[in-house]
Amino acid sequence: MRPKIYIKDLSDHIGEQVNLKGWLYNKRSSGKVKFLILRDGTGYLQCIVFKGNVSEEVFETADRLSQESSFEITGTVKAEARAVGGVELDATDVKLISDSVDYPITPKEHGIEFLIDKRHLWLRSKRQAAIMKVRHRVVKAIRDFFDERGFTLFDPPVITPNACEGTSTLFEFDYFDLGKAYLTQSGQLYAEAGALALGKVYTFGPTFRAEKSKTRRHLTEFWMVEPEMAFYDLDDDMDLAEEFLEYIVQTVLRECKDELEILERDTSKLKSVKRPFPRISYDEAVEILKKNGTDFEWGNDLGGGDETIISSQFDRPVMVHRYPAEVKAFYMKRDPLNSRVALAVDVLAPEGYGEIIGGSQREDDLDLLISRIKEHNLPQEFFEWYLDLRRFGSVPHSGFGLGLERTVSWICGIEHLRESIPFPRMIYRNTP
Amino acid sequence: MRPKIYIKDLSDHIGEQVNLKGWLYNKRSSGKVKFLILRDGTGYLQCIVFKGNVSEEVFETADRLSQESSFEITGTVKAEARAVGGVELDATDVKLISDSVDYPITPKEHGIEFLIDKRHLWLRSKRQAAIMKVRHRVVKAIRDFFDERGFTLFDPPVITPNACEGTSTLFEFDYFDLGKAYLTQSGQLYAEAGALALGKVYTFGPTFRAEKSKTRRHLTEFWMVEPEMAFYDLDDDMDLAEEFLEYIVQTVLRECKDELEILERDTSKLKSVKRPFPRISYDEAVEILKKNGTDFEWGNDLGGGDETIISSQFDRPVMVHRYPAEVKAFYMKRDPLNSRVALAVDVLAPEGYGEIIGGSQREDDLDLLISRIKEHNLPQEFFEWYLDLRRFGSVPHSGFGLGLERTVSWICGIEHLRESIPFPRMIYRNTP
Repeated sequence: MRPKIYIKDLSDHIGEQVNLKGWLYNKRSSGKVKFLILRDGTGYLQCIVFKGNVSEEVFETADRLSQESSFEITGTVKAEARAVGGVELDATDVKLISDSVDYPITPKEHGIEFLIDKRHLWLRSKRQAAIMKVRHRVVKAIRDFFDERGFTLFDPPVITPNACEGTSTLFEFDYFDLGKAYLTQSGQLYAEAGALALGKVYTFGPTFRAEKSKTRRHLTEFWMVEPEMAFYDLDDDMDLAEEFLEYIVQTVLRECKDELEILERDTSKLKSVKRPFPRISYDEAVEILKKNGTDFEWGNDLGGGDETIISSQFDRPVMVHRYPAEVKAFYMKRDPLNSRVALAVDVLAPEGYGEIIGGSQREDDLDLLISRIKEHNLPQEFFEWYLDLRRFGSVPHSGFGLGLERTVSWICGIEHLRESIPFPRMIYRNTP
Repeated sequence: MRPKIYIKDLSDHIGEQVNLKGWLYNKRSSGKVKFLILRDGTGYLQCIVFKGNVSEEVFETADRLSQESSFEITGTVKAEARAVGGVELDATDVKLISDSVDYPITPKEHGIEFLIDKRHLWLRSKRQAAIMKVRHRVVKAIRDFFDERGFTLFDPPVITPNACEGTSTLFEFDYFDLGKAYLTQSGQLYAEAGALALGKVYTFGPTFRAEKSKTRRHLTEFWMVEPEMAFYDLDDDMDLAEEFLEYIVQTVLRECKDELEILERDTSKLKSVKRPFPRISYDEAVEILKKNGTDFEWGNDLGGGDETIISSQFDRPVMVHRYPAEVKAFYMKRDPLNSRVALAVDVLAPEGYGEIIGGSQREDDLDLLISRIKEHNLPQEFFEWYLDLRRFGSVPHSGFGLGLERTVSWICGIEHLRESIPFPRMIYRNTP
């Protein structure tokens, strides 16, 4: 029974009789004509049911179809320059598959909580479906980018015995007789083992933060991609990060034109995402903040507002490197020229979308790494395996992490991360 | 500092001087010559350090290199038909990067528990690295297959408020003030919402079973891909499953020749994985079991031993369909021709690798689905959103799930699933 043809392919079938299956997205009437908008997941098609062309029963069926009822329609494909996709359908037969009585999401405005309650249906809307297609294309671009460059995919564990970056934001559970286990916050430490085994690897999977923040920039469950490369220093890391972001954005611009139009995205803002990106040190970032009238002090981490001030100086992502070591993670290597700063980089997206990439060169010296673990009051015994990577053939290596939902939100131009993932998880919501 | 060249590219650089970075995989001596085997994650290269060609210091460095120490080597690429990759290196310079004293995994035999304790290092072995590369290629084949066929990736939540297939094997944890939450066992129910919104979708992510079994066929954390298609019936589902498996296996055969050779895989067993696969009903499977002297009774689920008997009758995967409804999940549609059986299919891999795919046509009738939920004593209120998919434009739809680790293990010909994932999680282990 599977469909032989989908809406997106119809421009190759003009003049042919076809049979399509899908759902009623919308309809309007004009006397003896019903205009049915069919959606089938690949596109939207205007189907014209003219009373003179069909039996009375078929016309009645068309008349009774309600929003989101499923149906089958047969007809002839006609070129129609004004229609999306350049075609419409002259219907000869319409069959109801299954009804949809009082579909809850109507063209009127709904509150956001109601829409997330109905997320399983809300995903059928043009806008949400477009976001999901962009998300799909971003994921594919990410994987293609690394696959084409000789990286090996390296799936890190979700269930972890210890915390990578502090224990306050961990989901904790009982793991059989082995005591507590935690949901991973980052696959990076594992990726480092992968890089020393396989050269260049990337992880790509869900990560978790039990953060009690209710902002539009936080999900408790989100996907992160984390490349890790042996023999890369911070400059190599930044080169890769900017090539990567350009690749993602330019791919989506090229291949998701329809979706970006549905989302009414100002694509001029994305077209400028081209290498080279500006690279400024944290020191220079502090200067920018001071010039812009803030009383930001050297040594603090950049807040969301600070990031927006900095990124608004540029028309493309900006890379801020060499942060005070104090505000960065224990595994980051110090700058040999200035031990107060870490060889870290954050990439800030334009238009106030904030940090989308965080990366660093890793500390590759065993003794220094042990002393950092102690300074951070982390339990060294949990990190013995990680220290082994410095005991046996240590090499300079670097990597970064990119948050998928932040990237999708930025590219789609949406306000809140919750629309960038099929079923968002937030502090106040784990349903449906 | 990043490497300009990797071992896998050397056959394009014969006669050129190159600089490579990596680790010492192995070495041997023969008087005035040291043979160093360099690994860099892309391959293995024999490097010849001839006393007459290098300084005394360099020769000493080469002499002192121990297993898994990291080093940099410069030399001229020479064609050498007998070498893997067809090249070797005539070294002119060797520099130690970092030492490796008493590397714990030596060429002697180690127990499996020791090796898993050292998983972060064990991954550097030729065999484990080859498995990781096959895993990478299987994942890429899976994604390419669906991407090329118009599917949209649809990442389901890991954090779920309820259980899809029973509550006895769930990892449970506190979710802020919302009570208990669980780690997903399957993304299928969510994928169904995706299919009705986007037509054809696939999920691909980690899933979890807190199963207390210690067999070689169980991990507590494993990756699963689950396609779900609107307007597909069971036959369409089986067509897709066999096309999918053929695609994966034939792609790996074509693109992972070196890895399969390292793994000493009998590839003749994989070459026969071509469509069409045999399709037998559960009834026919029972006949086979009886003919083979078992006392299997109609109505039971197939055990591992039963699966092996059935699959050994065929030289390629076999699809067993239409199981007793009693042994299958609540959401499966009954056969309209025989309500005692569900429109389910399991695909059994050859060579005793057991079930690698489980799928079904889904119940699309609202009232029947509600009565199944009641029969299974499941809390209907948790499934209201799922029932909505039958209230608003229900359509026939089907899907299946394929376990990544079982597939990788089968293709690689390995005994135990724990070698098919970077850091395996089992009932008695969640480290490193």
